[in-house]
Amino acid sequence: MEKIYLDYNASTPIAPEVREAMLPFLEQHYGNPSALHFEGIHAKQAVENGRKQVASLLQCEPNEVIFTSGGSESNNYVLKGVFTTFRNKGNHIITTTIEHPAIMNPCHFLESLGAKITYVPVDQNGRVNPDDIKKAITDETILITVMHSNNEVGTIQPIKEIGKIAKEHNILFHTDASQSVGKIPIDVKDLHIDFLTVAGHKLYAPKGVGALYIREGVEIESLINGAGHESGRRAGTENVVFAVGLGEACELAKRSMSRNKEILDLRNYFWDQLQTTFNKNIVINGNLEDTLPNTLNVSFVGQIGGDILAQVPDIAASTGSACHSGTVTLSPVLEAMGITEHVGKGTIRFSLGRYTTKEEVDRAVHLFREAVNI
Amino acid sequence: MEKIYLDYNASTPIAPEVREAMLPFLEQHYGNPSALHFEGIHAKQAVENGRKQVASLLQCEPNEVIFTSGGSESNNYVLKGVFTTFRNKGNHIITTTIEHPAIMNPCHFLESLGAKITYVPVDQNGRVNPDDIKKAITDETILITVMHSNNEVGTIQPIKEIGKIAKEHNILFHTDASQSVGKIPIDVKDLHIDFLTVAGHKLYAPKGVGALYIREGVEIESLINGAGHESGRRAGTENVVFAVGLGEACELAKRSMSRNKEILDLRNYFWDQLQTTFNKNIVINGNLEDTLPNTLNVSFVGQIGGDILAQVPDIAASTGSACHSGTVTLSPVLEAMGITEHVGKGTIRFSLGRYTTKEEVDRAVHLFREAVNI
Repeated sequence: MEKIYLDYNASTPIAPEVREAMLPFLEQHYGNPSALHFEGIHAKQAVENGRKQVASLLQCEPNEVIFTSGGSESNNYVLKGVFTTFRNKGNHIITTTIEHPAIMNPCHFLESLGAKITYVPVDQNGRVNPDDIKKAITDETILITVMHSNNEVGTIQPIKEIGKIAKEHNILFHTDASQSVGKIPIDVKDLHIDFLTVAGHKLYAPKGVGALYIREGVEIESLINGAGHESGRRAGTENVVFAVGLGEACELAKRSMSRNKEILDLRNYFWDQLQTTFNKNIVINGNLEDTLPNTLNVSFVGQIGGDILAQVPDIAASTGSACHSGTVTLSPVLEAMGITEHVGKGTIRFSLGRYTTKEEVDRAVHLFREAVNI
Repeated sequence: MEKIYLDYNASTPIAPEVREAMLPFLEQHYGNPSALHFEGIHAKQAVENGRKQVASLLQCEPNEVIFTSGGSESNNYVLKGVFTTFRNKGNHIITTTIEHPAIMNPCHFLESLGAKITYVPVDQNGRVNPDDIKKAITDETILITVMHSNNEVGTIQPIKEIGKIAKEHNILFHTDASQSVGKIPIDVKDLHIDFLTVAGHKLYAPKGVGALYIREGVEIESLINGAGHESGRRAGTENVVFAVGLGEACELAKRSMSRNKEILDLRNYFWDQLQTTFNKNIVINGNLEDTLPNTLNVSFVGQIGGDILAQVPDIAASTGSACHSGTVTLSPVLEAMGITEHVGKGTIRFSLGRYTTKEEVDRAVHLFREAVNI
């Protein structure tokens, strides 16, 4: 039987258009973009074209975009770079209780170096209150970092409001938009942000490439020092093939933004069907508003999510947060939202995508009805 | 006319075998390797298979290999990780005057944090004397890092002897083997090293992937914190496609190690032809012994390397070190070797590779004879 992939928040397939764009660069234009000869020049042009495409999606200038190896690197770059550069100004960083480990663990590392981190809580929908951010600000605050949307429950954060607060207090502001880019429109200028993280493999580019928006005029210490690549901000011979891929993925995302409305409708239909099928034995974590259009985080009350998924091996979905799953303990995000253990352990995250069909959703509901003993 | 690529030390083409190995992963097995479902499992297997192939070339265990985004990241990881982890034990690091910027610049960064770095000089062939390393050791020394071979002149360093010294003094030892891996056999156990850097795009894998050998039992702070990828040592969803590519490239390198003897013969033939053509107007920087089999660094005496290359646009080669070229000033490596400005400015690095033919070498000599006014 055909498998059903409902784990797009963990990783997307590479879009055929992205693959097609990359293929020539697996054969030709293999030069080092720093080289001055024919092979170097073509490679350099390809990287710069990709950069323009990323910048166009984020609505910024190409010189505000650097390529990285992914969201984790981008996040580490910002957190460590800001702390190293501005530790003399202050040692306080504000974040939230629902960030990805690629924010949480750099924070813990910085704590070991003397940083003070405030972890602002969220409401039962996983949403942070901008007032709480404001209240956490001290004279020592050098950075605020709040994810653009949550990877597990899909909650979109009030980034623009927080950005305004950060700007008023002259504090640098970063948002990890790994899950948002490509799913909802993003305008970095409108959000008052200084840094924004992009993860390629969440938007139909390959795993192993990402980007970081750094607002013009902002300078922080690099994470990877070395030769002068990426305007001296990120050393390492450019990943030409994946820069081309991420660029194409961003252009494609921009062109197909309307597809997200269809995904939203399908996601809502999915929830309707699940509710009809399981009634009070299923609940939603978070809500359907202020949420990524593709994400549906539900709990089969009193069940164990992993056990259920084991009964439907033809469906790919996640129990915890897919990047670091493997245990049945309540995820820190669900815990931060105040979900009880009885409900939380039955959690399954469905994340739909560009290639999800209504037929797949119908079949998934059918398979779950057969698998779940309620 | 057919172009002639003689810049393999800057970047290699992707081998057709490597490309073939990667292609299926651009379409299938797109799951997140951390996911527990069908797509995740296949992706995970592919990464682990790649790791085994890398380990086999380096003659170590797979759990001693982590994938990175390239040589620069691997080098930064070691330098910053060792300093962060052992700064309480000491703040002294020993390196050489001919390291790549991906070593030099992290060293400068660490100096800004209080590290003391000794830059051990080299002889006129670009070779470091192990005794000089020994003499530089203090009670504060926490790391010795010496490149395995030099990217510009190809000089192979006495790594085994330095490794013995490091071991006797119980000091961690790293070698940046970006230029060596695939060109000459490497046995990490025999060299007494704790860390070894691999750069994929120097051995027919794509740009944007590398590896780091970390000897079993050695633990240092990560450069990229986050979720528990790569045994908790390097956060970031695994670059499945390029892990497959680097693995295949390593297997291919192991299989075709004998090809390097042919490349060596071709390189020596090239030098013979150039000498016959230009007599005393051309000199070699470094020598032909103790040097990478593919590398030929020459100076057209009294000329400017970049000007000459501009006259032969069908030939791809480098003047300075290709990763950071663009100026005609003497490279730090040539300067460290004591090359005079009169000679050094006429430097061209030729680096041959797996696909270089005798016919190309003959044509290159012909083109240079026509271009150089001597």
